Amino acid sequence: MRIMKIAVIGSGAVGCFYGARLARCGHDVHFLMRRDLEAVRRDGLRIESVDGDFHIAAQAHACSAEIGRADLVLCALKATALAEAEELIQPCLGPETRILAMINGLGIEERFAQWFGPERVFGGLAFVCCNRGEPGVVRHLDYGRITFGHFQDDHRQATELARLFADAGIETHVPPSLRQARWEKLMWNIPFSTVAVSAGGVTTREIMADSGLRALAEALMLETGRAGNADDCHIEIEPMVEKMFANTATMGPYKPSMLLDYRFKRPLEVEAILGEPVRRARALRVAVPTMEIQYALCAFLDRLNRQEVITE
Amino acid sequence: MRIMKIAVIGSGAVGCFYGARLARCGHDVHFLMRRDLEAVRRDGLRIESVDGDFHIAAQAHACSAEIGRADLVLCALKATALAEAEELIQPCLGPETRILAMINGLGIEERFAQWFGPERVFGGLAFVCCNRGEPGVVRHLDYGRITFGHFQDDHRQATELARLFADAGIETHVPPSLRQARWEKLMWNIPFSTVAVSAGGVTTREIMADSGLRALAEALMLETGRAGNADDCHIEIEPMVEKMFANTATMGPYKPSMLLDYRFKRPLEVEAILGEPVRRARALRVAVPTMEIQYALCAFLDRLNRQEVITE
Repeated sequence: MRIMKIAVIGSGAVGCFYGARLARCGHDVHFLMRRDLEAVRRDGLRIESVDGDFHIAAQAHACSAEIGRADLVLCALKATALAEAEELIQPCLGPETRILAMINGLGIEERFAQWFGPERVFGGLAFVCCNRGEPGVVRHLDYGRITFGHFQDDHRQATELARLFADAGIETHVPPSLRQARWEKLMWNIPFSTVAVSAGGVTTREIMADSGLRALAEALMLETGRAGNADDCHIEIEPMVEKMFANTATMGPYKPSMLLDYRFKRPLEVEAILGEPVRRARALRVAVPTMEIQYALCAFLDRLNRQEVITE
Repeated sequence: MRIMKIAVIGSGAVGCFYGARLARCGHDVHFLMRRDLEAVRRDGLRIESVDGDFHIAAQAHACSAEIGRADLVLCALKATALAEAEELIQPCLGPETRILAMINGLGIEERFAQWFGPERVFGGLAFVCCNRGEPGVVRHLDYGRITFGHFQDDHRQATELARLFADAGIETHVPPSLRQARWEKLMWNIPFSTVAVSAGGVTTREIMADSGLRALAEALMLETGRAGNADDCHIEIEPMVEKMFANTATMGPYKPSMLLDYRFKRPLEVEAILGEPVRRARALRVAVPTMEIQYALCAFLDRLNRQEVITE
């Protein structure tokens, strides 16, 4: 195995979990950290996982320049921090550095391609339930698969990158089209993440159990699928809707990350998950009236939640 | 002036305010009360009004049978208590008794006509800002006009009833069609009352100031107008929308009663204000997609708010 130098930019639960898995199998992994920096420097990083707990003596850094050039940048920033990504990634780039964007929403790789050139940009869609515990601890609750794609759908390159993760014991998937994989993920995220917020902060269980909310979720799914197909995808919408509902029915009271952000009054990833798809649909002249309403409500609720709007 | 015996069924702010005005000018007014019964029996009813404060020694009752036959029943129950109206009104009815429904929403006079016969049923749409203070006190903050209509649009009868209120110093209005007046009022109530709730419990000011919420309010207004016109009205929709927005812009941070109910975790008048119009539109095969979504969200938020839905 060739040992890679990997810079994890954005060391939340997802960045730490995958970074730690890569470090455990021998790669030279460096974490850009804020909240947990001191704790990880002192005690390392502990992963409490359904697949078995483990601990690494992680290399934690306060700034990207300290990390320097890497073979791979794994960028797992929140979508709300996307504007900072360029500056945070730049110090880690050499001519051969590849960049993997593991960020929710639409339009992520496009931004990265503008900043860093399209050939080196990859997208990774994580299907994983994990969250941060006390400083230096990440809890991995379920799943873990990553869907990989190259920005220009270079299947060979995407497969090569996927192998790096597969060798670290991570389930991987390389579909023909990264764009379609993004839209398909949005067919779940748009209904369940945003209705969880607009329906007052509830889990998937309450959405599934209420006929009105379920109909709203379905309308959002259908519009998302149609917008995706207008955006050069070939999603089989009806079977996908059935599959989404069937999978969600098995999840119990699952809390999408947007729901957790809402409850903890953190910024919501509304623009990446809902705003950008709405703008894409408008540009393609696809009517997405339900998405438009959800977007108006969630964007406002986000501001209200963080007291950017004051009401009497 | 012929002295009338008037039974006020539902002595909230609206019932007490208008009942007290009628009593002050000499009518024999009886109030069916719950919360304020003891206080009013002891101290009477005090109206603190922008038009001048006054006090009456109100006749307060715990049950309708105690009131007995009246010339006029003024029913100002909340729409959420509509199912109880028949039983509460029945003991006050004689062959000549007229019934004035001052209840929000759609389908109110229809129910009354089924219960009591159509000839004696009137609707009253109050445009008034008032609320209850400590027991036995009602605060009248602004406006006061009532739009009157007979269920079968008997203009002569509606005008006669309006005169009773006009003689008590109340501004009155008798339009050609009660049904159209109801739909026009809904063109304000549906957008502003329900968005106040679905946008997290905000006033008209926040809705007016946010472009997304304002667009949502406008979409609701347009759909309501179109549904009304499919229901045999002749609303000039565009000028009405302009007028609604212009009026609302002058209101400042106004709190619709549905917003107050939401904040105090009381049942919301969702069915009367939104559910019944949606069902009417469906029956008339008018597409009201925005109203449908608002209905799903508000009906759910109402249940969540009163802890009929528990979330993790």
